[in-house]
Amino acid sequence: MSENLLRGKRGIITGALDENSIAWKTALKAKEQGAKFVLTNAPIAMRMGAIQDLAKQCDTIVIPADATSVEDIEKLYAEAKEYLGGNFDFILHSIGMSPNVRKGREYGDLNYDWVHKSYDISAISFHKMMQVAEKMDIMNEWGSILGLSYIAAQRVYPFYNDMAEAKALLESIARSYGYRYGKLKKVRVNTISQSPTKTTAGTGIGGFDSFFNFSDSMSPLGNAPADACASYIVMMFSDLTRYVTMQNLFHDGGYSFTGISEDIIEQFKDK
Amino acid sequence: MSENLLRGKRGIITGALDENSIAWKTALKAKEQGAKFVLTNAPIAMRMGAIQDLAKQCDTIVIPADATSVEDIEKLYAEAKEYLGGNFDFILHSIGMSPNVRKGREYGDLNYDWVHKSYDISAISFHKMMQVAEKMDIMNEWGSILGLSYIAAQRVYPFYNDMAEAKALLESIARSYGYRYGKLKKVRVNTISQSPTKTTAGTGIGGFDSFFNFSDSMSPLGNAPADACASYIVMMFSDLTRYVTMQNLFHDGGYSFTGISEDIIEQFKDK
Amino acid sequence: MSENLLRGKRGIITGALDENSIAWKTALKAKEQGAKFVLTNAPIAMRMGAIQDLAKQCDTIVIPADATSVEDIEKLYAEAKEYLGGNFDFILHSIGMSPNVRKGREYGDLNYDWVHKSYDISAISFHKMMQVAEKMDIMNEWGSILGLSYIAAQRVYPFYNDMAEAKALLESIARSYGYRYGKLKKVRVNTISQSPTKTTAGTGIGGFDSFFNFSDSMSPLGNAPADACASYIVMMFSDLTRYVTMQNLFHDGGYSFTGISEDIIEQFKDK
Amino acid sequence: MSENLLRGKRGIITGALDENSIAWKTALKAKEQGAKFVLTNAPIAMRMGAIQDLAKQCDTIVIPADATSVEDIEKLYAEAKEYLGGNFDFILHSIGMSPNVRKGREYGDLNYDWVHKSYDISAISFHKMMQVAEKMDIMNEWGSILGLSYIAAQRVYPFYNDMAEAKALLESIARSYGYRYGKLKKVRVNTISQSPTKTTAGTGIGGFDSFFNFSDSMSPLGNAPADACASYIVMMFSDLTRYVTMQNLFHDGGYSFTGISEDIIEQFKDK
Repeated sequence: MSENLLRGKRGIITGALDENSIAWKTALKAKEQGAKFVLTNAPIAMRMGAIQDLAKQCDTIVIPADATSVEDIEKLYAEAKEYLGGNFDFILHSIGMSPNVRKGREYGDLNYDWVHKSYDISAISFHKMMQVAEKMDIMNEWGSILGLSYIAAQRVYPFYNDMAEAKALLESIARSYGYRYGKLKKVRVNTISQSPTKTTAGTGIGGFDSFFNFSDSMSPLGNAPADACASYIVMMFSDLTRYVTMQNLFHDGGYSFTGISEDIIEQFKDK
Repeated sequence: MSENLLRGKRGIITGALDENSIAWKTALKAKEQGAKFVLTNAPIAMRMGAIQDLAKQCDTIVIPADATSVEDIEKLYAEAKEYLGGNFDFILHSIGMSPNVRKGREYGDLNYDWVHKSYDISAISFHKMMQVAEKMDIMNEWGSILGLSYIAAQRVYPFYNDMAEAKALLESIARSYGYRYGKLKKVRVNTISQSPTKTTAGTGIGGFDSFFNFSDSMSPLGNAPADACASYIVMMFSDLTRYVTMQNLFHDGGYSFTGISEDIIEQFKDK
Repeated sequence: MSENLLRGKRGIITGALDENSIAWKTALKAKEQGAKFVLTNAPIAMRMGAIQDLAKQCDTIVIPADATSVEDIEKLYAEAKEYLGGNFDFILHSIGMSPNVRKGREYGDLNYDWVHKSYDISAISFHKMMQVAEKMDIMNEWGSILGLSYIAAQRVYPFYNDMAEAKALLESIARSYGYRYGKLKKVRVNTISQSPTKTTAGTGIGGFDSFFNFSDSMSPLGNAPADACASYIVMMFSDLTRYVTMQNLFHDGGYSFTGISEDIIEQFKDK
Repeated sequence: MSENLLRGKRGIITGALDENSIAWKTALKAKEQGAKFVLTNAPIAMRMGAIQDLAKQCDTIVIPADATSVEDIEKLYAEAKEYLGGNFDFILHSIGMSPNVRKGREYGDLNYDWVHKSYDISAISFHKMMQVAEKMDIMNEWGSILGLSYIAAQRVYPFYNDMAEAKALLESIARSYGYRYGKLKKVRVNTISQSPTKTTAGTGIGGFDSFFNFSDSMSPLGNAPADACASYIVMMFSDLTRYVTMQNLFHDGGYSFTGISEDIIEQFKDK
């Protein structure tokens, strides 16, 4: 079923790793809603077979690009513009990785070179994608740019490690660039703070399963599924949300404003 | 142009006073998107001619009801259900009034009977509409309930007076009932915190014009117009936003996260 | 041990019910730090024997007053001023009660008369105490006014019921009056959002014990004890905090910014 | 006048550049309140004459250290411990610098090597100071660690450039390490978000004066002076605030929660 919310719109979708990815589902919904877009991913993160399948389903192409490289982004934008036949209306930034998390370094024993890498990959790349877009003047007026965040930007989840700071950075960049791009071209910039999601990236984090269950017990609607997140992203790309900018939007089944749920109280009664 | 985002959905829209009202514009957009709904307003606030015209445009009826009266709400729901042929998928609460503001009582000289009235009309009525809905079990699963708020719930705008507290209450009720209704029936409850809007209600407040201009200079996209707010409301009633609940959503052109704009800095340079 | 932080300061302390009360402990510390003050409580809430003992320890008097009554507050202030020999430097508002909680009415079955009572007793009384103070011009410059709040003003704790709204109101009043009183007399107004505390008031709430334990497991420093809260209050009354105003200050061992603790993760692992 | 709030306490104070610095004033107050501490600053930022004068007044020594260097911090701690005769009770982090701001690079034309430097100097150094402290186990139980922040971490101030992200990082690190250090050793970690202050660092930022005036007109108590901030810091180092952790504390005369002041409204009336 299609409401054609994105008809005539062009864009860039990063981070579609496999069919569990929020970006993957977003691509499918964006296609369904009439958008034309290019898929991209870091050469190192790309599972070539998988993403080519997705490209086929979406009738588009894949342009590999490392989002920490200004040159790669420039090349991506130039090729995408040519392929799509015009400037962009939306960009999805769905990129994040922490070597400290990957390699099991605790928060009290961080490798600082890796800290810089976490920030660069997960947050500064968002700035780079916007700075290059501005310099190439490649966004249409009233365009929409989104990053994917997590509530660890506001509260501590010990297992999330230095990704907490990366997400705080990402959200700050959304505000700062949102101000700037709003003034310049009416482009809005927001982040969506999504429930813990069983993506390939999410499940890599230690303690993820316990937390997934805790979060699910806490949220009155349960954890928000990736599919619903994709719908929300499409809506944020559509013209129905033109004046929403510089926001961090919780898409989490009510988790963020639940202090405690009756389910959790029950579990603490037995003790 | 219609995307049929609300096809098959039924609901209640309060507060359509005249064509400047956000509720008025919401009614027109909801109609366009395929919704069936009933209009309602307090007998005392109703401009009968105007709202009947709107009802005609929307192919519906008006059922007068005082939202501070549990009995009136019960009657409203019963009649609306019969007219619409089923339970509701959405409710828009767009009701607010402070006798202290109206009658020019300063914040250091409040009439406390009127304080209770401000809260009752502007916030407790929101709870009443939900408590009655729950007791009559009149919301469909995955329904969406919205209230209209203002950033005075978070920060002080002296002219806003005891309405600041009323909006803080409204947002707290959205969270509390959002938790409850989410568990019970997957119904989501949110508030939208809208830019200052040149509605008949808004412009009644002293200092409004100065503030409207200040806010417009501050917001990178300018103040969000009522029309855009109506689109956002429709989107929040649609199935694209099912997992967003208990949130206060700023629809304000970026005002809420702008500390100072270059325009304002310019104006302070001359001093 | 005394640092004489409040030497020469005069004030009003409400809400000292018994020796578990935060207000009780505040009185003892304020005395120790050199303050002179009057104790007050609602006639209905007062345990005469207990509070007279406290008055004796603090070398002061008790003036019964119902904080929902403007007349009672006027009388309280007039008598206190005479007894203390001058205007006030600090006021502690530590008053809260919900008939809906007391009588076990659920959030979906509230008695609306009682809702008004909850707000009146727990929040509007704070406004009344300030409005009367302003009208009598009874605060000294750079005075400090504090209310006691709870994080239910921000997030949902189902057992907290309509007290959530009362606390949201209280915090909004602190902001609104803080702005006003700051301009008028350099008086600061803040709320302290304290950990769940085993006071006689706190333990009356259903599910309190489970929640107390949950909160204690969540907070890296554990729940903040009432004693520590009293120290924090004294500090907020002292001249060391003159420019802090319109804030809600969490005194909670880190609870408010902890998303999940390792202890809680452990407990969810077994499931 | 001394209340001896810090008697027997030992610590480290960074960032005392000259007599306008908040750190400078903090050193004087901490001395007055009975603390023993070591002063430190980056060799490159140090005005040797000035800081030696301060050291004399405070009866202590200066140990130069670059807070971005783990080795320097280790050396600093080791020498300071020896000089002070024991472990530390408090640390003040008052360090921040952005090459992009210094060299006038706009937010849409950032040099990304300098972005990493901004973050490293202004925020990651805070993590380094804590990670080294933890590894050397050099903090006493119930110690207090503070960083200085600014509201640009929450809202956009265009002239603040990439320092906005640096402050968002700093505050996130305070939360993350606050959780960790609380569990480990009852050490609390907070940031103070101070009014714009006419320090040598502050006034280097373009548009600072206009903003200083705007902020002063907005705040009901006016901008908080550096002296008052030093008092607040002392209080946060004292034992009166043991259960406050992981917080960002606004010390700003009410600015953060003022949406608009009557003074600003007046100025917008003329237009």
